[in-house]
Formats: sequence, structure tokens, C-alpha cells
Amino acid sequence: MDLLVSKVNKRTTINVTSRDIDKILSATLSSSNLWEIIDFSHRPFKLVVETLKELQERGLVVFKNSSIFPTKEGRKFCKRYNVTPKANHGCPACWGRTISLAKFEDFLPRFEQITGNRPEPIMEFDQGFVGPLIAFARIALLADRGDIQGKEVIILGDDDLVSLAAALSGLPKRITVLEVDERLVDFIKNTSEKENLRIEVIPHDLRFKLPLDLVGSFDTFLTDPPETIGGLELFIARGLVTLKGAGCAGYFGLTMIESSLQKWGEFQKILTHKYGVIITDIIHDFNIYDNWMYLLDSIKDDIGPLKEAPKMHWYKSSMFRIETLQDFLRVNEDVLSVELYNDPESLIWTEER
Amino acid sequence: MDLLVSKVNKRTTINVTSRDIDKILSATLSSSNLWEIIDFSHRPFKLVVETLKELQERGLVVFKNSSIFPTKEGRKFCKRYNVTPKANHGCPACWGRTISLAKFEDFLPRFEQITGNRPEPIMEFDQGFVGPLIAFARIALLADRGDIQGKEVIILGDDDLVSLAAALSGLPKRITVLEVDERLVDFIKNTSEKENLRIEVIPHDLRFKLPLDLVGSFDTFLTDPPETIGGLELFIARGLVTLKGAGCAGYFGLTMIESSLQKWGEFQKILTHKYGVIITDIIHDFNIYDNWMYLLDSIKDDIGPLKEAPKMHWYKSSMFRIETLQDFLRVNEDVLSVELYNDPESLIWTEER
Repeated sequence: MDLLVSKVNKRTTINVTSRDIDKILSATLSSSNLWEIIDFSHRPFKLVVETLKELQERGLVVFKNSSIFPTKEGRKFCKRYNVTPKANHGCPACWGRTISLAKFEDFLPRFEQITGNRPEPIMEFDQGFVGPLIAFARIALLADRGDIQGKEVIILGDDDLVSLAAALSGLPKRITVLEVDERLVDFIKNTSEKENLRIEVIPHDLRFKLPLDLVGSFDTFLTDPPETIGGLELFIARGLVTLKGAGCAGYFGLTMIESSLQKWGEFQKILTHKYGVIITDIIHDFNIYDNWMYLLDSIKDDIGPLKEAPKMHWYKSSMFRIETLQDFLRVNEDVLSVELYNDPESLIWTEER
Repeated sequence: MDLLVSKVNKRTTINVTSRDIDKILSATLSSSNLWEIIDFSHRPFKLVVETLKELQERGLVVFKNSSIFPTKEGRKFCKRYNVTPKANHGCPACWGRTISLAKFEDFLPRFEQITGNRPEPIMEFDQGFVGPLIAFARIALLADRGDIQGKEVIILGDDDLVSLAAALSGLPKRITVLEVDERLVDFIKNTSEKENLRIEVIPHDLRFKLPLDLVGSFDTFLTDPPETIGGLELFIARGLVTLKGAGCAGYFGLTMIESSLQKWGEFQKILTHKYGVIITDIIHDFNIYDNWMYLLDSIKDDIGPLKEAPKMHWYKSSMFRIETLQDFLRVNEDVLSVELYNDPESLIWTEER
């Protein structure tokens, strides 16, 4: 096992431990599909792929067209190191999301109807969105925590069209959207007008400081940040600066697919130490994203199983809820030099971007 | 509202914000029972009680025997500040715990049978335990994350008898319990022998450093720490020192009843900054504790609703899962000066202890 760890460590810039190998092997005992193995591993995409390549070279797994199987040697290795198949004890009713959609089900058909012709995700803004069920699961979660009823809510980047779900629920007092993609600005604006949803949509690139009238004006923010450290910090800082004061809440997703444990650690230090917020909830695999068209184009790798597009939902993120303490940090300055999308852990890593 | 905040701030050492008042008022719109109001508020016991007293003095709520009701003035105040009744969208299948017990249900009757004559909780060690369903919910959660199958698991303080649930599940390779209460040491030891569960039970006061053969020996730890900052840090540090290395996991509960947001913040800084671990999960209200006999004796307060013992489960905690990074801190020294149980936020605050 130690040899394997050091070999994989040479293949990637992401630090690998024997527990990572354990998790990836465990996933191969439960699925032969690459995308499902990544999902089950809860480890960075690039780490999983490099580990699988190493396991293949050492004869522990074999690639057959688009599938991956442990060899007889691989199974023996698993037995020796007590690696067992990935178990699933997730709640089948809420899919492990903790909340029930029962009181929001009636809004779903209307949401699906008015968002049917939504703009497709594009690579330029690292887009990829969650489906209607997740959009309303977010609303239910906010409602359960008292963060939306009669509250002023801001959404920083609304690829997921959560603003429309929130408006349909009738719960918030005010909904504001900041969005950089003009297609989405137009779509949300037009839909809001047509359906009389009173959503305020402001075209804004979050690298630029926020308009002053938004500062200190909201009870709750939602965002789905890009996952470089710079991107994470920037989006959360922008969210925080919109909040009214202590005891306000922010919600956002963070994956283990594009963020290593190290990055989780660095980011949590920033949250708790620099920004003066506490993390009240981290709900595992809460957000499940629809597959997006540009996925295979953006991954430059040549192993067989990577040439087959995923047929199931595999890209998930944990839902964070944070709450502001009395002395939380509010900064509102332009941050133009930040790299939002590309780091050694990001899924899409092209020189053109 | 601002006046109310400053008045309550004078009554308690815990910092109060308008959002805290919002949450407590919101709870009074949904329940007239003090214990349920504390549960719904997710704010420290003492803060809720002092706020209710202030609300009563200002004529916004009224105490009637063991019940609390908003007055007409109180309802007007709520309307003015957009305070709405506490909503509940928790999943009715898993009670918001994210996991299913389906694969563990068969073990429940046996667990209940062998733990029927368990020792009662005593004040000396701040005891209070979770019921069988929660004990197995913890096992299911560990299993879902691959932290128990074929793994070496240590439990630091086992008032909850999770060691017996873990052993019945047949999943761990090894189960060790450290316990200070001789009654529990004997009970778990005897039950383990009678039922052939092979649990290793070591009498140990966690203020003293751990026996060297336990250091670096386990994959996973569980504990339910006392909630002074000193107690929290000590129990987690003891857990961490037992772990084998990076990528290992720890599980523990933290309440909002005896820990303010400020304490959550201080503790999260300690975890992420000092100990080099990341928080991977925080599951709201995962742990629900049975009511314990010494509760009313330990609370020295004289308002009417506090004289009636709770009839429902009201004391809950969030379940944390942490994971160790490469450079996590392991210290193993005696810590004798620490105050484990009493601070201004603790439920039980007597001079005798």
C-alpha cells in the first residue's frame, strides 16, 4: 500500500494518502463505471483518474472499453487491506438531503414549465446546474432554518434558477440576482416579468465590487462558487458584504470532485479565521448537478472509460450553511487578478481559458 | 427591536442579536411549551430563558402555568419585524439525519434487550444518552462513509452504548471504549463478555494522557464531548491522538443549547487552525437525547414553565464528522486544570460541582 501511495503521489500534485486509495478501491468494488467510481470515492477527479491508471499499470484493475473492473490480484489486495465495497445507507426519501419537499411539490410543474427553455450551460462561466428538485430542496432548507420567510434574499450567480423557485414559493420579501451571463440575466428578467415574480436582476461580474445599495441589505445569500481558493473566497466575501449583520446566513455548495481535502481545509480556515463566520451545516451530496454538454470536450485525457459520457448524475456537492458572528468581515473592493476557475484540482484545465 | 436586544444583552453574558430574538419569537409562534421553544430556537438555553423573561416583562409573551403564549402586542411586534412561525421541512423518514436504518433494524431488539438494565445518567459526568435508534443511526452514518467496515474504532466516553451497537453490527475489526464511569465500564464489559462481543473496555479519565498502545492505533473515533471550550478541545484532541494518520475520521455531537454561536466559532477555529482537521459533515439535530432525571434539580431558575419537566425530546445536537489532514496535530499530555462542564452557557451551573 505504501508503495502505491508514493507512486500515485508522483503522478499528481494532489496529496494522496492510503485512505484515498482505500476509498477509490472501495468504489471499484461497487461499480464498474468511471463516473460512478468518482462519485463514490468523494475524492478529486484527477486524483481518482491517476489512481485508477496506477492501479491498472500494477494489474489491480483492468479497463474494458468504458468499464473498470478489479482483477483477481486487485481483490486479493483489497482483502489484505480490509477494503470493503462502498456501502450506501442514504435515506431513500430525501436522498440524504435532510429535508422534505412535500410542501413545495405543487410548485414543481410550474417551475419546470417556465424554465423549460433555459439557456444551456457554457464553459466560459464554468456553468452546470442543478435540476428542479434540488432548486426546491434549497428553498425547503432555507425555509426550515427560517432564512427565507419574509426575508431579503440575494443570489450571486443564478445558473440554477433558484431565484425563480424562491419567487414561486412566495416566501421571500425580496429576491435579488447578480449574474454575469447576459443570457441568464435576460432569461430571469423576462420570465420574472412574464410571470409577475418581482425578481430584481442585476448584470454584474463578481470580480468588481458590489453596488453600494446592495451592501448590508440582505438577510440571506446563496451562491455556487467556482472552486479555486480565489474563487471560493471571492464569492463568499461578496455574499457576506450584502448581509445586514450578525446572525445572517449564507448557503453554497462545495465539491470533493474539484476540491481536495487540503483545499477544504484552507477554505475552512479562511471562513472561520478571516471572515468571522461559523459553519452550521454541511450536508453531504445535497446538490446533484445535471450533466452538461461540454464535459468531455473539456477533459483532456485518453483512457478508455473517460471517452464515454456519464449516463447518471455523478457531479455532486455538499451544501454549506454559514452564519455571521458579530465581528464578521465585510470587504467590498475590486478583485481583478483572481483566478476563478483553473487550479490543479479543477476538472476543466485548459490553457485556452 | 434594538431596545429589546440591548435589554436582553444586559441579562446574559451571551451575546444576543436581533436574529436571536427573531428565532425565539418565531418558536413562540409555533409552540407554547418551554422545552419545545428551546428546541425550535436553536439558541442557548440560558439565552432563550432570559429572552422569554424580558419578553414577558415587556408584555410580548405571557406565562400561564407551564405554558408560554405570545400576547396580542407580541403578535403585532412579530408582524412588524416579519417574524413568522418556525417551519419544519425535516424529512419524516430519516428525521433529517440523512441516513436510513433499514439495514440495521434487525439489531434493534437485541440491543434494547441487552441494554435494558443500563446504568442511569448521573450529574457527576454530565451524562445524558441517546436512544437505540440514534445509536444505530451513528453506525449507519459511519458505514455510509466507510469509517467502520473492517476498521479499528475507538469510543471516548460511551454513555450512549454505541460500542454495543457497533459490535452487534459486526462491522468493525476492533472496538475499544475509554470510560471514566466505573458503572459503565462494568456494564459494557459484562455485557460484552456475556454476548461475546469482544469489546475492549479501558477505565480512563480523559484528563490524563492516553496509554501509549492506543496512540496512532485507530481509523475512527467517536465521542460526545462536554461543551466548555476546554472540554471540547480535550475530547477531540484525545480522539485525534488515537488516529493512525491522514484521512482518518472523528465523529462527535455539538449542541446549540449549551454552546452559543460564539463558542461554535471559537471551537471551529481550534479544529481547522490548531488541529489541522477539516469538517466534512455537520448534520443538524442528528442526535436526540433521552430526558434525564436530574435535569430540573440542576436548573436553578424560578419561572413557572421551568418547573414542569419536559415531556418530549428537546435536547439535540448536530453531528460533526471531521477528517484528518496530513499535518494534523497529535498531543498526548495530562491536562488536569481544564474545566470540563461549567461555563456561562452550560445548562447545569452549580457551585457545588
